[in-house]
Amino acid sequence: MALYGCLEAGGTKFVVGLVTDAGEIVASVRIPTTLPDETLGAAIDWLQAAAGDHGPLSALGIATFGPAGIDRARRDWGFITSTPKPGWRQTDMAGPLGQAFGLPVGFDTDVNGAALAESRWGAGRGERMLAYLTLGTGIGGGIVVDGHSLHGRTHSEMGHIAVRRDSADGGFAGICPFHGDCLEGLASGPAIMARWGRALSDLPSDHPGHGIIAGYVAQLCIALEAMVSPDRIIIGGGVAQTPGLLDRVRQRADIRSAGYFPGFDAARIVAPGLGSHSGLLGALALAQDALAP
Amino acid sequence: MALYGCLEAGGTKFVVGLVTDAGEIVASVRIPTTLPDETLGAAIDWLQAAAGDHGPLSALGIATFGPAGIDRARRDWGFITSTPKPGWRQTDMAGPLGQAFGLPVGFDTDVNGAALAESRWGAGRGERMLAYLTLGTGIGGGIVVDGHSLHGRTHSEMGHIAVRRDSADGGFAGICPFHGDCLEGLASGPAIMARWGRALSDLPSDHPGHGIIAGYVAQLCIALEAMVSPDRIIIGGGVAQTPGLLDRVRQRADIRSAGYFPGFDAARIVAPGLGSHSGLLGALALAQDALAP
Repeated sequence: MALYGCLEAGGTKFVVGLVTDAGEIVASVRIPTTLPDETLGAAIDWLQAAAGDHGPLSALGIATFGPAGIDRARRDWGFITSTPKPGWRQTDMAGPLGQAFGLPVGFDTDVNGAALAESRWGAGRGERMLAYLTLGTGIGGGIVVDGHSLHGRTHSEMGHIAVRRDSADGGFAGICPFHGDCLEGLASGPAIMARWGRALSDLPSDHPGHGIIAGYVAQLCIALEAMVSPDRIIIGGGVAQTPGLLDRVRQRADIRSAGYFPGFDAARIVAPGLGSHSGLLGALALAQDALAP
Repeated sequence: MALYGCLEAGGTKFVVGLVTDAGEIVASVRIPTTLPDETLGAAIDWLQAAAGDHGPLSALGIATFGPAGIDRARRDWGFITSTPKPGWRQTDMAGPLGQAFGLPVGFDTDVNGAALAESRWGAGRGERMLAYLTLGTGIGGGIVVDGHSLHGRTHSEMGHIAVRRDSADGGFAGICPFHGDCLEGLASGPAIMARWGRALSDLPSDHPGHGIIAGYVAQLCIALEAMVSPDRIIIGGGVAQTPGLLDRVRQRADIRSAGYFPGFDAARIVAPGLGSHSGLLGALALAQDALAP
């Protein structure tokens, strides 16, 4: 069984694992995200030792925080690019990893990786087009079509779409440093914390925040339907685990669709199938594609 | 030189033409859109006579008003589906045409056809991903990736995205029968007529309507950037020919982007390259693809 070296590179920690073709995580480790040389160096050291213990690797995959260079034709492919994170701007991730092992490297954003993994093994199996959204510290999304991530000039930034303000949510300016009250500025975990003082899952079930947040997320679902009409919309991330949220999103998306969109069916808005493994399995999908694109 | 039978099927007229591989329109005719049997029958008769005069056809293409069935795996492929247009609901377009000639038929929406034509011969040549928008009686858009229309469960309906209201545009409810003040309800030709009594191009150049409409269209451009990050956004249709509109859209898109989107460049919002021929050339692109998908 082929073994892959998989990196889920996050802003606070890296999860590094040895994963089989079948998605079995043979071994894994968490490494705090400090500075590139240190963190990436520790990841490489761990992977080399793990490969020594468990057998040689076939390829490597990196599912990373962004923004990231994902166009293989460009010089900054495999880089974290314009991040505000200190020390990480213009950091080559794929280069050092590929050189250390002499192996092909797959590289994409964490959310594109998770979308690919959900398409291959999770809640999007058998669907031709899916969108995967994550609602957490940030809000992001990726689209998979025919088994491949949809890449434009760069990766999607759909957390930053403009939404219509809920009239019950006046007076809150939003926390996005770029757009104020874009979707992420209104409905991300920190935005929820900023106006109600706790996480969505800690608010009483009759708190108006539940409906407000669901309404904003429903707007992204309807915008996706209008733009690309996905077969399935998968919603993951910490905020999405709030009990009842997905049902509320479906209800509000139905109302906003107003019966118009011929392909729309709120039942196609679903939870992820891979849970907390979607990060590493995203890196696995990218590693597999690096070997046989 | 191969000849193709091309239909641009609109709600008020069909344009039917004999077009060469090189995009030369050998002959064409306009047929009023009355009832399916009559209009489609007249189109077939004309094409048979024209093929008699100019030589045999290689394939046929239909670029149609919608909504339309564009999934070849479904029974309603080649149909106009849930249109409110009297007599046209669930009308098989591709079937009768293919049977009359015994030839392969390409079929898609008019805007997806135009997007394909712009990608192949127009303002999108050489770009990997483009979006083509039309601003007219309705507002629609299509996305082309790697030379193919991006199809989800159905075609895009991006004219119906929700936009934020311009504070200078209060008091107008919008004219979309489904959503009221969605983009089409606010910025289509009839919406402009409804609140200002004339076409955008007939308003004085200092009329606030110019900025208001440009701002709404800019919101669609930024939503596209956030969702899929196209290499180019091409804006056609009657309303888009208003002098200065495209410049205003670029300015407002720049402001709304707020420097955030790494791939965004307002200079990539451009006019079509094919002008009024994009309909028939869209049908040509579909016909060519039916022959060699």
